[in-house]
Amino acid sequence: MQAAQYIGDRTIEVATVDPSEPGPGEVRIRVAYVGLCGTDLHIVHGSMDQRVARPLTFGHEMSGTIESLGAGVEGWQVGDAVTVMPLAWDGTCPACLAGHQHICQNLDFIGIDSPGALQQLWSVPADTLLRLPRDLSLDAAALVEPVAVAVHDVRRSELAAGDSVVVLGGGPIGLMIASVARHSGAEVLVVELDEGRRVRIDALGLATFDPTASDLVAHVEEWTGGAGADVVFEVSGAAAAVRSATAVAKVRGTVVVVAIHPTPREVDLQRVFWRELRLLGARVYERRDFETAIELLGTTAIPIDAIVTGVVGLDGIPSAVADLESGRAMKILVDVQRIGGVS
Amino acid sequence: MQAAQYIGDRTIEVATVDPSEPGPGEVRIRVAYVGLCGTDLHIVHGSMDQRVARPLTFGHEMSGTIESLGAGVEGWQVGDAVTVMPLAWDGTCPACLAGHQHICQNLDFIGIDSPGALQQLWSVPADTLLRLPRDLSLDAAALVEPVAVAVHDVRRSELAAGDSVVVLGGGPIGLMIASVARHSGAEVLVVELDEGRRVRIDALGLATFDPTASDLVAHVEEWTGGAGADVVFEVSGAAAAVRSATAVAKVRGTVVVVAIHPTPREVDLQRVFWRELRLLGARVYERRDFETAIELLGTTAIPIDAIVTGVVGLDGIPSAVADLESGRAMKILVDVQRIGGVS
Repeated sequence: MQAAQYIGDRTIEVATVDPSEPGPGEVRIRVAYVGLCGTDLHIVHGSMDQRVARPLTFGHEMSGTIESLGAGVEGWQVGDAVTVMPLAWDGTCPACLAGHQHICQNLDFIGIDSPGALQQLWSVPADTLLRLPRDLSLDAAALVEPVAVAVHDVRRSELAAGDSVVVLGGGPIGLMIASVARHSGAEVLVVELDEGRRVRIDALGLATFDPTASDLVAHVEEWTGGAGADVVFEVSGAAAAVRSATAVAKVRGTVVVVAIHPTPREVDLQRVFWRELRLLGARVYERRDFETAIELLGTTAIPIDAIVTGVVGLDGIPSAVADLESGRAMKILVDVQRIGGVS
Repeated sequence: MQAAQYIGDRTIEVATVDPSEPGPGEVRIRVAYVGLCGTDLHIVHGSMDQRVARPLTFGHEMSGTIESLGAGVEGWQVGDAVTVMPLAWDGTCPACLAGHQHICQNLDFIGIDSPGALQQLWSVPADTLLRLPRDLSLDAAALVEPVAVAVHDVRRSELAAGDSVVVLGGGPIGLMIASVARHSGAEVLVVELDEGRRVRIDALGLATFDPTASDLVAHVEEWTGGAGADVVFEVSGAAAAVRSATAVAKVRGTVVVVAIHPTPREVDLQRVFWRELRLLGARVYERRDFETAIELLGTTAIPIDAIVTGVVGLDGIPSAVADLESGRAMKILVDVQRIGGVS
């Protein structure tokens, strides 16, 4: 079978490898679609070389069907449509014992710390599986994982219907957070520098704002009758957005830190104190977030067509990476069984 | 009557002024004791000259007895022992309408934004009063306000009995937070640079730590069995302490920002994200915090004798300020009716 592997030095190769047999408690999945995300770009850029073994078969946003069952697997059948929640926790660290397995202190993120989904036959523990409804297409189902991120972020914010929500950053995750927040009854403003992205988001009926053209703080003040935003999601990873996040939040408002900030950022702690703000980190998801994401993808809540801007074969990943880097693409799926235009 | 006034240029004067008559809904208090706090030092240092009118009769941690009643005041009698919650909110801003009057967007902090307690006869709205129990001495009762700060901070942290708590900064507020947290059943570690303070805090049976002598993160890891602290209170105002705060907090741990940080601080948002931390601003107090503070001062929870390191007359404030600046003193009370050694 074929697998896409990061081999170092910004290089991805499609290699012919022997599929691993599913071990006890595992299933082998015929992978259908894999979405490429920001973390995959970080891997390919080499920024995670200290963490990842090479060659690494990466990829962790996926859908597929069960191809075979390892010993002792119950409740699943060959042919079942599934997705994988790509987390493996140790179950013994203080975080796990406190019930926060999803951010286990020794978390194995499958597709980063162990082989991922960009292979035609992928063996995973059966307890990572979630069943996909029959009427959810496998390409849409490749979005379950990133939608689960958005569901987790929104759930963690505890936003309520009618809340004013600012999303800083209108990339795929920002757009999904905005969509989930809107579905929860919030009024949403997406702040995004890129005009092309703003146009696409506007077309979905979500309000957008260009912070280089006018003053965001004044705009949010006016929008919220002088109160400020109930919830702010920092999805951009930019230092300037961190300043905006605390500046636009209302008294007792919530700022959710979704983005990765590789270096410490200046935070206006005086504002945090003065307004009794709440800053919350939000990372990955729990199983119920996956379940909610699957439900939402069966509704019109998530603008799938606006998010998925392309599909490539397994050998099309390098060009997809270039399109993602340039900002031309939002989300690109890899049709894992297809190589050279032939499925 | 006599009043202590900040007249600018780091100067405090005792002036003879006519006492104001209590207006409708007001009472006039014969002020007994006023505690001097960090904010008072900021005023005297001139750092709040843009905010405060001069001459300013400052002071907001106090006790006293009612001397006379304005028109329409019910439920109070001359001679009642009282303290004042020195907040006046507008009741109409979005924060007030949302129930957060204590951090009203147009808050008048009495003693900063309007005349305070360092005068022998002080008129205040009756709705700022809280009744003091007969068996609480008036000098101890001057601590109600700062203890209410500590109660508010601890309540906001939602700490539970058995929690591991790190208090960064062992000044008066840090010590009161540590005391309230211990009274709530937490195990507390106070991190303090000053050896003299550590010795005094050790003597109260609270654990202390010198972060210049050994590695705080390693110490907290070992203390908590690898988990990290449940709750961290940042009371020092130091940039280095902000770094420590996120470093020692457990997965899903809470960092309460109590101190004033006049400039933005570098915060490890990657750690906030990775461990799903919660950073909470906590400012002043609500009425129930005052009520709890009064109750606690009637128990042994608050080490009053260790906190109050001196009492001066109304004309002793400049020397008290010097002692507080040097770190020689923890909390100094002003015996407002006493001038020149004679009460």
